[in-house]
Amino acid sequence: MDTAEQMNPEAYFDSYEDLKIHELMLSDKPRQAAYQSAIVGNRNLFAGKTVLDVGAGTGILSLFCAQAGARRVYAVEASNLARLARAVVAENKFDHVIEVSECRVEEFRLPDDERVDIIVSEWMGFFLLHEGMLDSVLYARDQFLKPSGLMFPNTATIYVAPCSVPSRFDQWESLSGVSMRCFGETLRGQCAAKPEVLTVAPEHLLHEGHVMTWLDLKEVTTEELNSIESKEVLVAQTEGKLQGFCIWFDCTFPTDETGGQTKTEVILSTNPSAPETHWKQTVILLPEQACEELEVRDPVAFSLTMVRNQETNRRYDLQLTLLDAEKEEHNLPCECQMTKCILMKAHLDKMQVDG
Amino acid sequence: MDTAEQMNPEAYFDSYEDLKIHELMLSDKPRQAAYQSAIVGNRNLFAGKTVLDVGAGTGILSLFCAQAGARRVYAVEASNLARLARAVVAENKFDHVIEVSECRVEEFRLPDDERVDIIVSEWMGFFLLHEGMLDSVLYARDQFLKPSGLMFPNTATIYVAPCSVPSRFDQWESLSGVSMRCFGETLRGQCAAKPEVLTVAPEHLLHEGHVMTWLDLKEVTTEELNSIESKEVLVAQTEGKLQGFCIWFDCTFPTDETGGQTKTEVILSTNPSAPETHWKQTVILLPEQACEELEVRDPVAFSLTMVRNQETNRRYDLQLTLLDAEKEEHNLPCECQMTKCILMKAHLDKMQVDG
Repeated sequence: MDTAEQMNPEAYFDSYEDLKIHELMLSDKPRQAAYQSAIVGNRNLFAGKTVLDVGAGTGILSLFCAQAGARRVYAVEASNLARLARAVVAENKFDHVIEVSECRVEEFRLPDDERVDIIVSEWMGFFLLHEGMLDSVLYARDQFLKPSGLMFPNTATIYVAPCSVPSRFDQWESLSGVSMRCFGETLRGQCAAKPEVLTVAPEHLLHEGHVMTWLDLKEVTTEELNSIESKEVLVAQTEGKLQGFCIWFDCTFPTDETGGQTKTEVILSTNPSAPETHWKQTVILLPEQACEELEVRDPVAFSLTMVRNQETNRRYDLQLTLLDAEKEEHNLPCECQMTKCILMKAHLDKMQVDG
Repeated sequence: MDTAEQMNPEAYFDSYEDLKIHELMLSDKPRQAAYQSAIVGNRNLFAGKTVLDVGAGTGILSLFCAQAGARRVYAVEASNLARLARAVVAENKFDHVIEVSECRVEEFRLPDDERVDIIVSEWMGFFLLHEGMLDSVLYARDQFLKPSGLMFPNTATIYVAPCSVPSRFDQWESLSGVSMRCFGETLRGQCAAKPEVLTVAPEHLLHEGHVMTWLDLKEVTTEELNSIESKEVLVAQTEGKLQGFCIWFDCTFPTDETGGQTKTEVILSTNPSAPETHWKQTVILLPEQACEELEVRDPVAFSLTMVRNQETNRRYDLQLTLLDAEKEEHNLPCECQMTKCILMKAHLDKMQVDG
């Protein structure tokens, strides 16, 4: 979901009619396992309950809910995939439980102005917020969820960490015995224009990850999603070349706390050290002159903002600014090596990148 | 290189100005290794010679030729990447050997109507012929190569084999405990419209590969590339479910036979059992009703044609027809089990697919 026309309001739902996107998502084992475990593994939370599935797609989450004993599941899907979801529901003999509605959730009405016990949705995009589908989930929550209701997932956290990106930066010095340095530089110049969805190896993270934002999905508002900002001085935990910033997210799901037995919380993580998902990680590359060899405890000061694009509100503009660590507030006692802070001052840079 | 606008004549060269395509190609280790080994490993063939590099891209093949001792290399590149190639050449201090020309090879002129000793080019597309770039290489051969000259590569072979495609066919029976059969069927219905570029595991081939065509690049004509046809009865070498046909290619390079020491022929192979390249394999999926469990020695009769598209001559239309093995000519003595041949007759099918 990353081309201009797919972000066009009319084209957004059409794009999900390409079944290859669903093949990709359904073949994403950590995604499947997290939802299956959180839903089917929590029968106590679902038995006899009513559920709303926002953006039901092929209907798989609704089927998990039915398997978990839900009394009624309202599966809302805006694209014509709703018809396929109906066939999948019938194939699994749950048509007496699951009702598929082909409409946007903003146009959906529950019978008798009922409210549901649970909302399930897989709304996450690249770097969590891309696609802006969370807005529809929050609308559904405010319109249709009982005050005591549960959200699946119920929290989402965005992380950011300085990282190396050797595949993009380091292989061009000598490629098959040829110096391709100027190719590498031009390539990075082209790529600095937008964040990239890449797989980052865990050993290329220079920090375990700073929490940029934590969203309680029972409470967060659409307005709070308009702009998310983080300004930090992190201290390198691994030595290596700072070449970019890696962004990922995780989501958690409600756990049944009533049954007497303590259950492990289900986490769907897109951390580089977790099994790879179709979300991979999102990387903002630094220009060459801002790259810097870091030693353990060297400070990295930056601000990262995610601001909803004014024209296409399913997009976010990401802006990364490298800051002068010396001028930023530190947690005291400060562990950073101040000579490095001064060095970094010369490398102040700013990138406007379009998500 | 696979979207409609990239196949548009004007857009074709522009598309190569996206450096990520070159990053992909330059990061393709079997591709790099084959050309490096064939050129730099054959100094005797290149020392003191003149070379024409058709579609030079970033200039890497021209640099291999210069490293191998070529006296003069004409690097012809139609996109504005020619300017980057010039910078790469300068970076490697070979500007006295390599002359980069920003033009189509059809517009190129050699000084004093000279002819070159060697043509190098990496012109191969998916299933070898996609992109139709070989036409330009053959034009260059006819216009600019000495009669005794060498082509790098000098042969190309297209292979086809019946195969299983379990990722597309078999995972939908029970996905995370849900039956998604009708999703799988609809997905295959969508995908049957065009060949797919996929990675096929070697164990999913039901035959080692039949040579669909072998091209001597010193002799083949553009007209011969307008339509390539193969009609065969193959005998399964491995048992498994026939779910599609896998197409791949390999290329060979001239070997120095004069030095007294026998050199190993360099082969760039996109066989499923060879290390993965960015070409992967091309697969034509069968409709469900044409899929058939094959035992060892069961016959598979089919015809496969690759016909140049009339409107966009960089595209080929692939057409696969399953045939009745019983009615086709066999090599005698025939090893096929005739009951199976009759069974297959019911599954006669035809697919027009657009490359």
